[in-house]
Amino acid sequence: MTGFVSLVGAGPGDPDLLTLKAARRLAEADLVFYDALVSPETLELAGRAHRFPVGKRAGRASINQETINRLLIRAATRGKRVVRLKCGDPFVLGRGGEEALALLEAGVAFEVIPGLTAAVTAPALSGIPVTHRGLASGFVVVSGHAEAAYRPILETLAPNALTIVVLMGLASRRALSRLLISRGWHAATPTAICLAAGTPHADTWLGTLDALATQSVAITDAPGTIVIGDVVSVGAALATGPLSHSRALAESQAG
Amino acid sequence: MTGFVSLVGAGPGDPDLLTLKAARRLAEADLVFYDALVSPETLELAGRAHRFPVGKRAGRASINQETINRLLIRAATRGKRVVRLKCGDPFVLGRGGEEALALLEAGVAFEVIPGLTAAVTAPALSGIPVTHRGLASGFVVVSGHAEAAYRPILETLAPNALTIVVLMGLASRRALSRLLISRGWHAATPTAICLAAGTPHADTWLGTLDALATQSVAITDAPGTIVIGDVVSVGAALATGPLSHSRALAESQAG
Repeated sequence: MTGFVSLVGAGPGDPDLLTLKAARRLAEADLVFYDALVSPETLELAGRAHRFPVGKRAGRASINQETINRLLIRAATRGKRVVRLKCGDPFVLGRGGEEALALLEAGVAFEVIPGLTAAVTAPALSGIPVTHRGLASGFVVVSGHAEAAYRPILETLAPNALTIVVLMGLASRRALSRLLISRGWHAATPTAICLAAGTPHADTWLGTLDALATQSVAITDAPGTIVIGDVVSVGAALATGPLSHSRALAESQAG
Repeated sequence: MTGFVSLVGAGPGDPDLLTLKAARRLAEADLVFYDALVSPETLELAGRAHRFPVGKRAGRASINQETINRLLIRAATRGKRVVRLKCGDPFVLGRGGEEALALLEAGVAFEVIPGLTAAVTAPALSGIPVTHRGLASGFVVVSGHAEAAYRPILETLAPNALTIVVLMGLASRRALSRLLISRGWHAATPTAICLAAGTPHADTWLGTLDALATQSVAITDAPGTIVIGDVVSVGAALATGPLSHSRALAESQAG
């Protein structure tokens, strides 16, 4: 019997936002190696699997990538059906490409099952479209984890010409705000922080680019997605209109 | 009884890549208004619904947005469970924000169910991660439908500093190639066209940025996603390695 590895995107946290294929692979899995931020409700779908946390949270010790690769390869070569369950999408700032190349090199059969990336889904769940006619016809996604990663990209963007989405950027929010304003972005550019999107603890902060540097959002352990651009005003309209979309849903289901 | 509209992302075409929530809304729907490129297999999940095509393909007449908004509102106010089924994600170049605002203004209860966007998923299904350590720490997504939409964004990007993904850009591929090379992008930048991703007719062209202007890919009615950047080399490695990921999957399932 031949083992097999599925690199699976878990989406934003709500198990209802897994793909049908991802849910099936979890149900069939012998072993699941999961990111620290994957929700317990999602893991419950892997009812027959042994489940191992393998990483990774900002500022905490975690298993290194080479070890994860070795664990995946060893399990597959022992004939196991293995799921490598990653937050969001495996190929958006998730090192899924590195895992795929390691499996390829080891001759291990694998597949990639995309998931909903927080870059699009976290804003969407706050009512914010990353593009909107007349406001933005494109968007850029960067990691806010290290200045060396985002500065070369952000500092050349035409100011206010597109939407910026920053993943893993909560700790960099002051530096991001100052960098963009110094490059000509309007201080009043609508800006949002989508916290813990797709979980019961989801919350959205709505403000401006200059307030991003000074606001005192309670930053918890939850992941946050920063959205900068006029599209945030659509989210503000949906959130403060006569019938917000989340209220609308609750009322409909009650009715 | 109160009607309700779900703005649902259908993902790239494969019904197995719908979210669990989207599949459930389709199964419960009374009415489905769908984009022309939604796959027949996906529509079959809406077994009890009346299904109406409402758009939109490049270069063909389609129902205008105001009419679509009116149809959604009318059906919901008559108490129907309505699904507005959109290719990819409703909020990525899909006018979902406009539909949400129209529903809000009309006082119609609604929700947004994100879907897998072709911007990330079409490359992923060709083995291409939009980010990859050492190659790209960010990516930009633009519409290639009109030069006025993509030029202001692309012409200021630092050359070869991030991945570019172009949706609806097949007809603009020569102009895109020339624009980027004129702005300092390497002519040899790895470039891919992901055709009909997530369907049985999926195909990937791998080449370079200058060849994008001159190649003779058979462009069909199928949608295409253009990916420009060094990350395309990862897809090339996975596609030409000793065990390509699609072959690997077929062999595993047979074994």
